[in-house]
Amino acid sequence: MKIFKYNYTVMFSDCDNAQIVFYPNFFQWFDRATQNMFIEVGLPWNEIWINYDIVGLPLVDASANFIKPLRMEDEIVIESQVVEWGNKVWVIRHDVKLGDTVHVEGTEKRVWGKRDPDAPAGISAQPVPDEVRALLSGE
Amino acid sequence: MKIFKYNYTVMFSDCDNAQIVFYPNFFQWFDRATQNMFIEVGLPWNEIWINYDIVGLPLVDASANFIKPLRMEDEIVIESQVVEWGNKVWVIRHDVKLGDTVHVEGTEKRVWGKRDPDAPAGISAQPVPDEVRALLSGE
Amino acid sequence: MKIFKYNYTVMFSDCDNAQIVFYPNFFQWFDRATQNMFIEVGLPWNEIWINYDIVGLPLVDASANFIKPLRMEDEIVIESQVVEWGNKVWVIRHDVKLGDTVHVEGTEKRVWGKRDPDAPAGISAQPVPDEVRALLSGE
Amino acid sequence: MKIFKYNYTVMFSDCDNAQIVFYPNFFQWFDRATQNMFIEVGLPWNEIWINYDIVGLPLVDASANFIKPLRMEDEIVIESQVVEWGNKVWVIRHDVKLGDTVHVEGTEKRVWGKRDPDAPAGISAQPVPDEVRALLSGE
Repeated sequence: MKIFKYNYTVMFSDCDNAQIVFYPNFFQWFDRATQNMFIEVGLPWNEIWINYDIVGLPLVDASANFIKPLRMEDEIVIESQVVEWGNKVWVIRHDVKLGDTVHVEGTEKRVWGKRDPDAPAGISAQPVPDEVRALLSGE
Repeated sequence: MKIFKYNYTVMFSDCDNAQIVFYPNFFQWFDRATQNMFIEVGLPWNEIWINYDIVGLPLVDASANFIKPLRMEDEIVIESQVVEWGNKVWVIRHDVKLGDTVHVEGTEKRVWGKRDPDAPAGISAQPVPDEVRALLSGE
Repeated sequence: MKIFKYNYTVMFSDCDNAQIVFYPNFFQWFDRATQNMFIEVGLPWNEIWINYDIVGLPLVDASANFIKPLRMEDEIVIESQVVEWGNKVWVIRHDVKLGDTVHVEGTEKRVWGKRDPDAPAGISAQPVPDEVRALLSGE
Repeated sequence: MKIFKYNYTVMFSDCDNAQIVFYPNFFQWFDRATQNMFIEVGLPWNEIWINYDIVGLPLVDASANFIKPLRMEDEIVIESQVVEWGNKVWVIRHDVKLGDTVHVEGTEKRVWGKRDPDAPAGISAQPVPDEVRALLSGE
């Protein structure tokens, strides 16, 4: 699978009272790294939400494994790839690296949230369209 | 195990472009709910960090399962309890409920981060002191 | 003018690398305190957005004066009141107090953002409806 | 004065329930843009906090003027410059631009927060050292 890279310098505003990155911020970065995958293949979210009539790519679950802390001004790269295309749920893996060392690894399970007036909450989980799947897979 | 409750009204500022709670915020709430457990048993973090010479309660891993979305002005309760006291790692479970329905369930695995100049990054994972464990367990 | 009160315990998650409240969070709290004024008078935002066909209460400007820092577990109250009802712009003042001492004071200038397909960005600034004004003024 | 530029793509995670950038996030970006000025002139905060024995650059006040909204995937640049070097307080101006249009303009007034055990809260406001002032001024 294609690996996407999102470079970032950890800022003061990302760190907490213990002077390391506040852990929920890693999930915010996962969300950004996922959005960045779409931007990089020419599918910005502001367009695909309209073009595919989706309400977003809601999370089913998310997890992270915190191996080493990160601090202000660390220059990190988040390496992201789709590791599973299920029928409804698809899985993205994110490795947050400082140099060659993985400091945090995480996964997001998401659905393709089609607007659907007949479904509960107005959303139904649909398979990711083939052409989107191909682009994110790097095919 | 004792179940602690943290009441909250979901605010505009918690919601995202899809008009539901932005998923990383649930982890921020887990962090607050954990801190609230300590406050409720008379162990506020600003005191125990000094009294026990710890740098915090760093996360080893965190996960959440998003069952139903939450929206602005939903009046939720987060029910939290320690579900495992390991030798080093201890596990807190959080259920985010609207009425009787669980919308999100999550877990945090944390360590007791003792300041230790000889350890890597200046922190060593220590067992949670017995009296802290007893209070959080509701004994 | 009626003064509304929003109580809050400062949490670990609100503090930054300097171990005081991260200053943008005060603006997040101003936003919450403003929303809370509406909730308290029976005008929750999820209802008035629909009932009045508004897209929100967009900010024109915001400012804050940081007098003393706040730290984890400080038990604060935010006192909020409308201090000016202009024709288009209305002004809310927020005092963030610890005990009797004001630590931060701020103002938000907002408009009543009516959905308007003919206006730039689809929003036109309208006077706040009389009954809303009366309720927020405590009349 | 030297103008520093901080490029950024607005992300889903920056936007709120009204589908525009949540206003407190502009202040978070101001903080980042200020930190970025220091990084660009070779004075990363993690070094100067130690080398100059400061606890940070605390805010005295902050304000912003919201001219036009910003949305997901807007590619912005924040142009930042010091516009006043007072004896204690110094002022940074930030213009958030999309193309040639300023969408938000803001100011931060900060102090150089020297660690000082004899001062209230352990911090005293000191003049910014000459060499720091020169670098940030582009001299």
